[in-house]
Amino acid sequence: MKRARILHGGAPVWAELVGDGGALRLPGGATVDAATAQWLPPVTPGATIFALGLNYADHNKELGFQSKEPPLIFLKGPNTLTGHEGTTPRPADGNQMHPECELVAVIGKPARKVSAERALDHVAGYTIACDYAIREYLENYYRPNARVKNRDWTTPLGPWIVDAADIPDPQAQALRTTVNGQVVQDGSTADMVMSVAELIAYLSSTMTLMPGDLILTGTPQGVHFCAAGDRVVCEIEGIGALANHLVAEATA
Amino acid sequence: MKRARILHGGAPVWAELVGDGGALRLPGGATVDAATAQWLPPVTPGATIFALGLNYADHNKELGFQSKEPPLIFLKGPNTLTGHEGTTPRPADGNQMHPECELVAVIGKPARKVSAERALDHVAGYTIACDYAIREYLENYYRPNARVKNRDWTTPLGPWIVDAADIPDPQAQALRTTVNGQVVQDGSTADMVMSVAELIAYLSSTMTLMPGDLILTGTPQGVHFCAAGDRVVCEIEGIGALANHLVAEATA
Repeated sequence: MKRARILHGGAPVWAELVGDGGALRLPGGATVDAATAQWLPPVTPGATIFALGLNYADHNKELGFQSKEPPLIFLKGPNTLTGHEGTTPRPADGNQMHPECELVAVIGKPARKVSAERALDHVAGYTIACDYAIREYLENYYRPNARVKNRDWTTPLGPWIVDAADIPDPQAQALRTTVNGQVVQDGSTADMVMSVAELIAYLSSTMTLMPGDLILTGTPQGVHFCAAGDRVVCEIEGIGALANHLVAEATA
Repeated sequence: MKRARILHGGAPVWAELVGDGGALRLPGGATVDAATAQWLPPVTPGATIFALGLNYADHNKELGFQSKEPPLIFLKGPNTLTGHEGTTPRPADGNQMHPECELVAVIGKPARKVSAERALDHVAGYTIACDYAIREYLENYYRPNARVKNRDWTTPLGPWIVDAADIPDPQAQALRTTVNGQVVQDGSTADMVMSVAELIAYLSSTMTLMPGDLILTGTPQGVHFCAAGDRVVCEIEGIGALANHLVAEATA
């Protein structure tokens, strides 16, 4: 099953995709046309958003950085999110913005000190993020600071959450990014340094993950600089395709 | 005016301190005894929690680190918070836990690209945090990772929010920490590397700060290792005193 969060009657609602995905069923049973839906990021308000740096072996090699021990985990604010088919302002002060297609695990049950073996029992489902980075603000040691990873609307999320039952092995999904139809990332979740299960075990070793919390699991190789006007699509096998439109940032 | 968030009738409510602070007035006008109040962290659910590393000149010198450019800003999850007179589990895996008394600015009006000169107009008030750190998990370059700064209940916050009008200059407040009555931090917000106004200007240059968002502004010198059983009190002039009880972490 796929669950989306859309704007309906001026309020956010969760809706289920029906049939081939052309329609969305609202809580009362009525349906709306997916083609005209106003997609919101599929996130529970108040959820904590965790993200990973340098969690793909091929991307680390491309950047010339080593994986980190402990893993490089950072948090993102809700200001960063936007939904499917949303617009993202291309920051006026950044020359090197690039898209990062990421598998996102959505926590379904509280997790505290869970083993990697049992960790996937705590996942409700999966979605897709495009975790844009402003590359030139990285430092000589990699640190995902606020200018790189916490700008308004720079993290498209969606289009929907696919039930965990529909993705039995999250480490076997192809993922790719296209910019104006050109493939710029083409990888596999098999290349993650720490798997979804290992990340949940690690995070839950010192904190409690709660239902709705998100883990953005990092991105494979393929650094491509994008510009205002670009249409960026992040696709993950078994989930779908998340589209985003880059626009010039208003500077006034 | 001082506003606290307390548990009343099984639900969180905001309440005003009356008179000498011995009582709290509920929204309906009834009062409760402050001595028996169950204090919650004075935070708006869903707020983004920003925190600073290395933002006091004296503490940087003590640690042997330089201030960072850009400033070292990180986000914290709501799992980290606990209220006045709360208990914090002393992690079983950390030998070097120490308290960090911090002035906290609470945003009152949305802030996007505001100047430092106008930044304090966007502050609703101030409170106190004790941003405990697990020192030995810091790396040779300082990075506030999840094991250091995002553990459950390791950030007491409160006891209440003091109106910004009552603190006309947030850079002129004495702050100190006592552990079992012994003074272990004794500094001044005058020693901040970036002031509250500069931090708001910096953050709002690339993102929108929203009402309720918190900025934990860093801590002065005084590294003191504390243990289960300790009573830790962080005091800031013009705000009050935030008390916390360290207990041994349950390891089962």
